[in-house]
Amino acid sequence: MAKLLIKGCIIVPVNGPVIERGAIAIEGDYLTYVGPQETLPPGWEGAELIEAQGMVALPGLVNSHTHAAMTLFRGYADDLPLRQWLEDKIWPLEGKLKKEDIYWGTMLALAEMIRSGTTTFADMYFHMEVVAQGVVEAGLRACLCQGLIGVQDIAGLRLRAGESLVREWQGAGEGRITTMLGPHAPYTCSPEYLVKVADRAAKLGVGLHIHLAETRQEVEEIKNKYGLPPVAHVAKLGLFKVPTLAAHCVHLTEEEIHILAENKVGVAHCPESNLKLASGIAPVPAMLKAGVRVAIGTDGAASNNNLDMWEETRTAALLAKGVTGDPTALKASEALTLATLGGARALGLEKEIGSLEPGKKADVILVRTSGPHWRPLNDVVAHLVYSARAEDVDTVIVNGRVLMNRGELKTLDLERIYTEVNRRMADLTGSPRFLKV
Amino acid sequence: MAKLLIKGCIIVPVNGPVIERGAIAIEGDYLTYVGPQETLPPGWEGAELIEAQGMVALPGLVNSHTHAAMTLFRGYADDLPLRQWLEDKIWPLEGKLKKEDIYWGTMLALAEMIRSGTTTFADMYFHMEVVAQGVVEAGLRACLCQGLIGVQDIAGLRLRAGESLVREWQGAGEGRITTMLGPHAPYTCSPEYLVKVADRAAKLGVGLHIHLAETRQEVEEIKNKYGLPPVAHVAKLGLFKVPTLAAHCVHLTEEEIHILAENKVGVAHCPESNLKLASGIAPVPAMLKAGVRVAIGTDGAASNNNLDMWEETRTAALLAKGVTGDPTALKASEALTLATLGGARALGLEKEIGSLEPGKKADVILVRTSGPHWRPLNDVVAHLVYSARAEDVDTVIVNGRVLMNRGELKTLDLERIYTEVNRRMADLTGSPRFLKV
Repeated sequence: MAKLLIKGCIIVPVNGPVIERGAIAIEGDYLTYVGPQETLPPGWEGAELIEAQGMVALPGLVNSHTHAAMTLFRGYADDLPLRQWLEDKIWPLEGKLKKEDIYWGTMLALAEMIRSGTTTFADMYFHMEVVAQGVVEAGLRACLCQGLIGVQDIAGLRLRAGESLVREWQGAGEGRITTMLGPHAPYTCSPEYLVKVADRAAKLGVGLHIHLAETRQEVEEIKNKYGLPPVAHVAKLGLFKVPTLAAHCVHLTEEEIHILAENKVGVAHCPESNLKLASGIAPVPAMLKAGVRVAIGTDGAASNNNLDMWEETRTAALLAKGVTGDPTALKASEALTLATLGGARALGLEKEIGSLEPGKKADVILVRTSGPHWRPLNDVVAHLVYSARAEDVDTVIVNGRVLMNRGELKTLDLERIYTEVNRRMADLTGSPRFLKV
Repeated sequence: MAKLLIKGCIIVPVNGPVIERGAIAIEGDYLTYVGPQETLPPGWEGAELIEAQGMVALPGLVNSHTHAAMTLFRGYADDLPLRQWLEDKIWPLEGKLKKEDIYWGTMLALAEMIRSGTTTFADMYFHMEVVAQGVVEAGLRACLCQGLIGVQDIAGLRLRAGESLVREWQGAGEGRITTMLGPHAPYTCSPEYLVKVADRAAKLGVGLHIHLAETRQEVEEIKNKYGLPPVAHVAKLGLFKVPTLAAHCVHLTEEEIHILAENKVGVAHCPESNLKLASGIAPVPAMLKAGVRVAIGTDGAASNNNLDMWEETRTAALLAKGVTGDPTALKASEALTLATLGGARALGLEKEIGSLEPGKKADVILVRTSGPHWRPLNDVVAHLVYSARAEDVDTVIVNGRVLMNRGELKTLDLERIYTEVNRRMADLTGSPRFLKV
């Protein structure tokens, strides 16, 4: 089995104390040693070696809610009222998307995620088989689902596509791909459809990925129609009998927070998207206090506009303090946990990833501390959350395989991706404006 | 006079439309041409040339409120209640700071600012003559003031130091340094002291830099003591008869917003520091609507924890939307204006800097668009605000002089700065923990 040894780094394992001069040993796709360099067991002489002096090793970041292909729409429509943004800009373009467009938009997202230290992401879109194909090629870990809209004429078709994805791709890419069913939201799926999808998920043995309680408008609409706010509504339908990943959860009652906690629902907190679309600010400290499994997500690049988990985690940590008036809310170590182990838990992958410990999958990132924003190195965890940036990521390892080293992508052809994305976006919009830099 | 020509870039001049294929001509410290490359006047054959294909040129960012030397305390004390943070952590260390500590902490800040595209900053601290010395050496532009605390035994001493700074350093560094007087805040300076300082500023012909209305506690304290909230209180004292730069302005009445607008007070909006210290969120859209001169600032690295104006500007743009519930609030172009021309206005430098136009000083930054987070290039201004990062900055020019090119610092010795900062922080804290990476 291939052996890889990382030496000389500071290790932030997330599940335990910081190790000042550590070593990480990888055999195949597993971590076999994470600890002080001086107590590394023998037998690593012939291993491939990464000298990581001056770097911080930590578990790869988990982006718990994305629509990867939407990188195509980055900057295409900003600063608009939500309805105009969707109806005039996003939906018309989405209507024109072909499989190949989705593939290349996804490849751009994968490049951006690897470059910024994300090793696992949870994605919802359509034509997901091409997303799965891209993930296999790129080497990332992903939890994928077809977005299911419960509108009469496409509801059945979409559900069949969703089920196909599960049957054909669950466990693909040496186990890196897991799947879910993805009922879009309670305002786009009828109660009957939601129940049907949950039943199918139970039968297939997979979870659900859904948007919940994103806007006040949604809350009002669902309350008016069904007499309950969104979380309570889908809970009553029995949705949470299968493991569920719920994106956003911005507007919640206290009771709904307890429903989320009791049912072990994973919540993908997407603070920048929620701010940018003016949806509001999710009650993260209250959710954490109640025991909800909170994770961090960027949402798609049409509403963020990047897939930068460093930014997102820092924003989450800062907002929690600013909104509650409590400067001790969501401490650096807690925020970092949400971005790693919290994400793993929300995706049902906490036995495999989310922390650096022997027996877990080898999803490791190395972060440079050479920039002035890292000095003095008074507190490495505080610096990771409050000061670090995506470009500090030097090396990315997923499932024991090096996907990036010294900033160089090993599995993706960036120039090809740029060319395809530019050409496709020019075709889709009929405008080559600024596409040829 | 030295001639420098930048060719092939996209230009975002801030005061006018984007130029797709532009040229920027610099003679000495001034911009002499900013426009399409094809209409560049002749006579630039022998000039030093920067080929900037694939880059975006824009005015350097203006950081309107910093305490540069506090980079020393980055990550030293986080996630604490404000009083404990100040009394147990920050003040005891500040009490031990020597001139040389402040010099090296400032040099670290200057390196971080140049690397991230900040060309001008407004700083308040003590021993400011060593900060001024550092600014002269680094080549940045700065608006400096001695922080004045109106406590009996040091009030006079500090004011004399503040006046000396003005007399000795105003216009230094080829005019790059301007000065102000810096009464710390209405809760640390008595009304009599504030009036005295404002009178001295008027006599010296300089402005004031003050913290105003940062926390609810301050507002309550000032109201209880003087019967008016902070902005109204200092306005009544006549402070605003001199040009004033007010940091924070988080908690304001409607009337105070109008006072700020009428008196042309520059407001340094520091959203990340205000969130991190749980002070709250300043009413930026309301201030802008009333005509207040809003600028963006990072505050010191003890409460941010970096000096990254990209992050700060994005956070300002996102918060404005999320808090008002209006996704059209603080559009990308408006946010970028606050970070450049808005900063220049708040510092009284709008005739010299803040936009790229002939006759203004040559403070220009070039930003790479080669990262995946820049693709597709649907909207360059949206990308600058919502997607760009500090590391995208390739080249920094201040007053016609290249301070960084291709990421390489030309005026500062980073290794020396790191060594000094690490050693000094270890001495100050008595703890070498994590200082030797």
